[in-house]
Amino acid sequence: MAMRTTRKQNYPQWYQEVVSEADMAENSVSPGCMVMKAWGYGLWERIQRVLDEKIKETGHENYYFPMFIPLSFFQKEADHVEGFAKEMAVVTHSRLISEDGKLKPASPLEEPLIVRPTSETIIADSFARWVSSYRDLPILLNQWANVVRWEMRPRLFLRTREFLWQEGHTVHASMQEAEAETVRMLEVYRDFSENALAMPVLVGRKPEHEKFPGAIDTYCIEAMMQDGKALQAGTSHFLGQNFAKSANIKFVNQNNEQEYAYTTSWGVSTRLIGGAIMCHADDDGMVVPPHIAPYQVVIVPIIKKSEDSERIMAYIENLQKQLKTQTAFGEKIRVKVDGRDKPSQDKSWEWIRKGAPMVCEIGARDVDSAGLMVKERIYLGKPEGKKIISVADFSAQIGPRLEALQAEMFARAKARLQANIRTDITTPEAFAAYFANSNEWIEDGKTAKVAFVRGKWCGDTATEEILKSMKITIRCIPFDQSGTEGPCLLTGKPATMDVIYARSY
Amino acid sequence: MAMRTTRKQNYPQWYQEVVSEADMAENSVSPGCMVMKAWGYGLWERIQRVLDEKIKETGHENYYFPMFIPLSFFQKEADHVEGFAKEMAVVTHSRLISEDGKLKPASPLEEPLIVRPTSETIIADSFARWVSSYRDLPILLNQWANVVRWEMRPRLFLRTREFLWQEGHTVHASMQEAEAETVRMLEVYRDFSENALAMPVLVGRKPEHEKFPGAIDTYCIEAMMQDGKALQAGTSHFLGQNFAKSANIKFVNQNNEQEYAYTTSWGVSTRLIGGAIMCHADDDGMVVPPHIAPYQVVIVPIIKKSEDSERIMAYIENLQKQLKTQTAFGEKIRVKVDGRDKPSQDKSWEWIRKGAPMVCEIGARDVDSAGLMVKERIYLGKPEGKKIISVADFSAQIGPRLEALQAEMFARAKARLQANIRTDITTPEAFAAYFANSNEWIEDGKTAKVAFVRGKWCGDTATEEILKSMKITIRCIPFDQSGTEGPCLLTGKPATMDVIYARSY
Repeated sequence: MAMRTTRKQNYPQWYQEVVSEADMAENSVSPGCMVMKAWGYGLWERIQRVLDEKIKETGHENYYFPMFIPLSFFQKEADHVEGFAKEMAVVTHSRLISEDGKLKPASPLEEPLIVRPTSETIIADSFARWVSSYRDLPILLNQWANVVRWEMRPRLFLRTREFLWQEGHTVHASMQEAEAETVRMLEVYRDFSENALAMPVLVGRKPEHEKFPGAIDTYCIEAMMQDGKALQAGTSHFLGQNFAKSANIKFVNQNNEQEYAYTTSWGVSTRLIGGAIMCHADDDGMVVPPHIAPYQVVIVPIIKKSEDSERIMAYIENLQKQLKTQTAFGEKIRVKVDGRDKPSQDKSWEWIRKGAPMVCEIGARDVDSAGLMVKERIYLGKPEGKKIISVADFSAQIGPRLEALQAEMFARAKARLQANIRTDITTPEAFAAYFANSNEWIEDGKTAKVAFVRGKWCGDTATEEILKSMKITIRCIPFDQSGTEGPCLLTGKPATMDVIYARSY
Repeated sequence: MAMRTTRKQNYPQWYQEVVSEADMAENSVSPGCMVMKAWGYGLWERIQRVLDEKIKETGHENYYFPMFIPLSFFQKEADHVEGFAKEMAVVTHSRLISEDGKLKPASPLEEPLIVRPTSETIIADSFARWVSSYRDLPILLNQWANVVRWEMRPRLFLRTREFLWQEGHTVHASMQEAEAETVRMLEVYRDFSENALAMPVLVGRKPEHEKFPGAIDTYCIEAMMQDGKALQAGTSHFLGQNFAKSANIKFVNQNNEQEYAYTTSWGVSTRLIGGAIMCHADDDGMVVPPHIAPYQVVIVPIIKKSEDSERIMAYIENLQKQLKTQTAFGEKIRVKVDGRDKPSQDKSWEWIRKGAPMVCEIGARDVDSAGLMVKERIYLGKPEGKKIISVADFSAQIGPRLEALQAEMFARAKARLQANIRTDITTPEAFAAYFANSNEWIEDGKTAKVAFVRGKWCGDTATEEILKSMKITIRCIPFDQSGTEGPCLLTGKPATMDVIYARSY
C-alpha cells in the first residue's frame, strides 16, 4: 500500500506526502510557519533529549536569552547584519487599538526590536558584562529556542520562517581554545547525526563565500539525501574576535594585559527532521531510526470477537510491562499500545506510515500460542519483515534488535553516500557535462545520476558566479585532504584543494 | 553571612538580591525581558521534566504552533482581544534596510502579526480543520513555548515581557467532559505545586471579573508568599463554546447532528520560579526543593595541601559514583562536584546562596575517617544543619533524606499558609481596618499582619471598584464552601459565597 507518489515519480511531492501521511507537521495559517504535530514534535523531543545530554556532557550549561534584540545591536557587526537584514521580523508596536471596528497597531516602540534570527549579538552583550578576567573563562553555554528568518520559499522542516533549534555560544581566552571548541562541537554533531539519526555525514570547512555572516571559519556536517542533493545538517562557527570587538568582550589575561576574547557558536535545528525524512523514508512513508523514535514498539490489538477483548488486552498489558524493563541505546524501551476504536489494519498502516520501527499485532491466536506477530519497518514487504515470535524471545531480544535495526539503517545510508561520491570527474568539461545532465533520481546507488563530486577547487572568488550559473554549491572542504594537484573543476587552473561539489537544499 | 537585605527590611529588594546572588537570572538589554542563567534555567528544565511527565500521563501529547498569529485572528473573539490588546508585540516588517548608515524597517507586511500572548486563537483554527466527527474527539495537546505580554512594570520571573510556559489546549464533544478536563488539569497543577515545588496552594474558581479573557470559567491555584501576598501559580480555563464559535470548530455528534465543540486551556509559566523563591528562600538566599533542584548534592573539595589533592579527588569520584546509583523521587540522584579553582569556602557559600539542598565538604581528614561533612540548606545555621557522617551511611540514606527535606519544606510552607488565613474577620468595618493597616512582614506566622482573609462576598459587580480602592483582589472562590450565611465583607449585604481576599503579585 504505497503512498500516492513515489520518490522516483516526484521527489519533492513525495516528501510532502511523507510529512502529511506520517502526520508530522502541516503548513500553518501563519504564513511560512508550520504546525508540528505529535509525531513530528515527538521526534524533536527525542533529538533534544539525546543531543542535550551530549551538550551537557561536554561541559555546557543551558541558558535562555530574550528573543527580542534591539535593532541597534545589528548595527555593530557589519557582515552579520548584511547576512540577515533581508529576512528579519521587525516588532514596531506594543499594542492594538480598535478604529472603526478594525484592529490596528498602536504605541510605536522607541527602538524597533528584531525577533532573533540567531543570538550572537545579544549574547555577546551579556558576555561583555560577565567577563573581566581570564578566571571567568571559558563560558560554555547553550540555549534551546525558536528563531525567525523570513524565508520566501518555505518548506516544512527544511525551511520555515520560524523554526526550533539549539544554539551554543562560548567565550575563550585563546584562539586555540576557541578553535578546538568549534571542532569539538562539530564532532558532537557528527556523532549525533550518525549514531542517533543514522544519517552519515561529511565533515569539513565551508568556503569563504558560504561562511556564517561574521565568522572567521564555519565548519559543517553535510548529509546526502536520497535524491543525491546535499543537506547542511549542522554548523559550528569560529568567530575569532569579531563579535568580541563589536560587543567589547575584553578580559585581563594572565600577563595582566587587556585582550579581546574569542567566541564560537554552533547550532542544529528542526531541519534535522527534514534530513532524517529524506535520508530514511521510503515509498510507504516515514522510517524513524529507533534511537529517536518517540515509540519504538507499537502494539496493535486484533480483536475479532468482543469476548476475546479482555484476555487480549491483559496479555498486551503484561507484554508492555515486560518490554518496559528492557533497554536499548541505554534507555528504557518506549512502547505504545494503540487501543483506539478503529480497524486494526488501518492502525497498523498508520504506524507504518509514521515509520515506527516495530509494529506488533496481537490477536486471540497469539495469546493462545504465547506469541505475537512483529513487523519491522525497514524490512517492510520483504519476507524477513514479518515474523511470528514467542513473547519470551521478543522481550529478551528487543534491545539488541532495535540497536541492530538502527545499525542497518546507518549501514544502508552510509553505503548510499559512499556509492554516490564521484571522484572520477577530473576536468572542467566533464564536470560541466555531468551537472548539466544530472537531475534524476538515484535508486539503491545503482542508477546514480546526481551525486556529490569530490574534486579540485582553485579558491578564486570569481568561481562563485560559475557555481551559481551551474546551480551547484561547494558543500565543504573536507578535513581529509589528499594533497594532490589537479585542474580546478570550475576554472581548469592548477589546484590542490579537494572540495565537495553538489546540488543542495 | 546573610545577604545585604533581609525579608523584614525590604521584601522586594530582598527578592532581587536572592535572584542575583543565586545567579538565577538578570535583567536584559532587551527591555522588560530577562536572561535566565544556568541555575534559573536549570530549575525550569526540572519543572518541565517533571510536569511534562504528568501532562503526558494524563493523555496529552506535545505539539508546536507558530508564535506569530495573524492580527485578524484577534478580531474573532471580542473578550479575548480586549483582554490582551494593550500588551501585544506587533510585527509589521520583514526586513531591514540601511539608509544614511542607519538601519530601518522595510518591506511592510500585508497583515501585521502578533507575537502570541497565548495561543487559543491560532490553535482553535487548527482544531476547526482537524475536527469533523465525534470520533475525532477529544484532542488533548500541550505546547512548551515562549509568549509575550507587554508588561509595563516587569519583574524577574514574576512578570517579564517574554516568558516561558506550557499551554494545554483540548477539544471535547461535551460540556461535561471539557469541564472535567479543566478540573483534572487544575488537580495536576495542585499536585505538582505541592509535591514538586513544595508550595501549598488553595484551589478554586476565579470571580467573573478575574477570568481569562474569553473563558466561561477560570480555575486557579493560589500560593501564599512569605510576605503574605498571593501569587497565582497556575490557571485552567473552561472555554465553553466561545472559541469553537469564533473559529468554527464543529463536529457531527453521535445523533448525526452538527454541533460546536467545547474547548479548554491551561498553563503555568516561569513565574513558578518566582513563586518558589518567595515561598522558600530565606535571608541567606535561595532554598531549592530537592525534587526540582538541578543538583541535589554539591560536593566541595577542601584541599589544604596540594599533595592531598589526588586522594581527595579519587575519594570524591568514588562517592559521586555511589550516590548516582541511588534514587530520590523515583529518579537518579543529581550530584555536582565543584572543582573550580576558587577558595572552597567561597564555593560553599555560592551553593548555599543558590539553595542547593545539600553541600558536602570533603577534605583530607574526611578521607582518613571515611566520612564527610554535610550541610543541609533548610537547617542552615542550626545545630542539626551541619553534620559529620560516614560515606556508607550518607549513601545509604541519601534518597529518603532528600525526600524528608522536601517534606519538611512543604510542611513549613503549609503551616505558614494555614496560620495566615484569617477567618475571624466578619464585618466590612473590621475588614477595611485590617487591610488599611496590613503592609508588614510576617515571620514564622507569629507577627502576621498581612494575611489572606477568608470571608463572604455578595458577588455584585460594583464590588470591583471597592476592591481596587483597597488594593486587594479576590484570589478565588474555594471549592470547599461552608454554605453558611454572613455579611459580604465589601458591602455588608447578606452573602453565602466564601472567597479568599488578599493582596497579590
